[in-house]
Amino acid sequence: MKKSIGAKTIVYPTPVFIVGTYDKGGKPNVMTAAWGGICCSSPPCVAVSLRKATYTYGNIMANKAFTISIPSEDYAKEADYFGLVSGEKEDKFAASGLTPIKSDLVNAPYVEEFPLVLECKVLHTLEIGLHTQFVGEIMDVKADAAVIGENGLPDIEKVKPFSYAPESRGYYRIGSFLGKAFSIGRSV
Amino acid sequence: MKKSIGAKTIVYPTPVFIVGTYDKGGKPNVMTAAWGGICCSSPPCVAVSLRKATYTYGNIMANKAFTISIPSEDYAKEADYFGLVSGEKEDKFAASGLTPIKSDLVNAPYVEEFPLVLECKVLHTLEIGLHTQFVGEIMDVKADAAVIGENGLPDIEKVKPFSYAPESRGYYRIGSFLGKAFSIGRSV
Repeated sequence: MKKSIGAKTIVYPTPVFIVGTYDKGGKPNVMTAAWGGICCSSPPCVAVSLRKATYTYGNIMANKAFTISIPSEDYAKEADYFGLVSGEKEDKFAASGLTPIKSDLVNAPYVEEFPLVLECKVLHTLEIGLHTQFVGEIMDVKADAAVIGENGLPDIEKVKPFSYAPESRGYYRIGSFLGKAFSIGRSV
Repeated sequence: MKKSIGAKTIVYPTPVFIVGTYDKGGKPNVMTAAWGGICCSSPPCVAVSLRKATYTYGNIMANKAFTISIPSEDYAKEADYFGLVSGEKEDKFAASGLTPIKSDLVNAPYVEEFPLVLECKVLHTLEIGLHTQFVGEIMDVKADAAVIGENGLPDIEKVKPFSYAPESRGYYRIGSFLGKAFSIGRSV
């Protein structure tokens, strides 16, 4: 017997996306977003939802481009800071000491110190309510050599991403390996 | 200096959503989906993307409703199984021994044994490419009493959800607490 806790935005895990954009003066900006995820395999797309009030919203509308940088747990403080202040008032790269790098394929910057980066071109914009959802086509994924495994792909155990728990507002590390997908269910 | 690894659907963490629907004969079905996430705070909404070829796609189009059940790590095998076979051919509840419960507010079943459940009504349908994205308004969240914390909300450490790592196709546990959001970044 389950207990009703109301209409709330609670799922686990939610990601910690650092959304990178340029403003109209060319200043690089980043903000933290937890409302998003992969939304299509072909073309490869990722969705991220933002409030219109954010500085990033206007930047994406102007450039039709953004990046998503995935922070490692070593940069949890910086990732949290990016969600605390507006890029309209502060230069978050300068304040955090992190480095903006211009993407190769889209007009948006990513965070050099974060191990995994997606360069995205806006494919759809969906007005939902308080949040606007941007569907970005993933033009390229870039990773630090140090987090790439023997198969040439990122290794989550080396990336050391973390997740966000809504409502309790906690960040949690990725834990231990539980099993292989498309495999462990064969013996049910 | 980052290395390009191509246009791939890689972000961390991605969720393990168990999407519950009824078919036209009223048979409850579930499937596993990793492409999704919260997409709006008000109204509270969650997005999940499915291929048209899935049995669940037709069920959602017919009922305009679905649930998302979040499995605990104790049910990783069952959650994986739900993604291995089609509900058109198999009764996945019967085969797994798990229990379908009709939602209170929408015409869709959830998995009784999974600790956290969202009841959703379809608000938007977005054709992206191989995947169709369903934006569901979260009408209610239900949780087992055993996973509700002192504040009346679900406690991620009791829910014990797990995440999916694309490309490597591994399931990973949620790890230890890393820090408080909207807080640890104040000292950057």
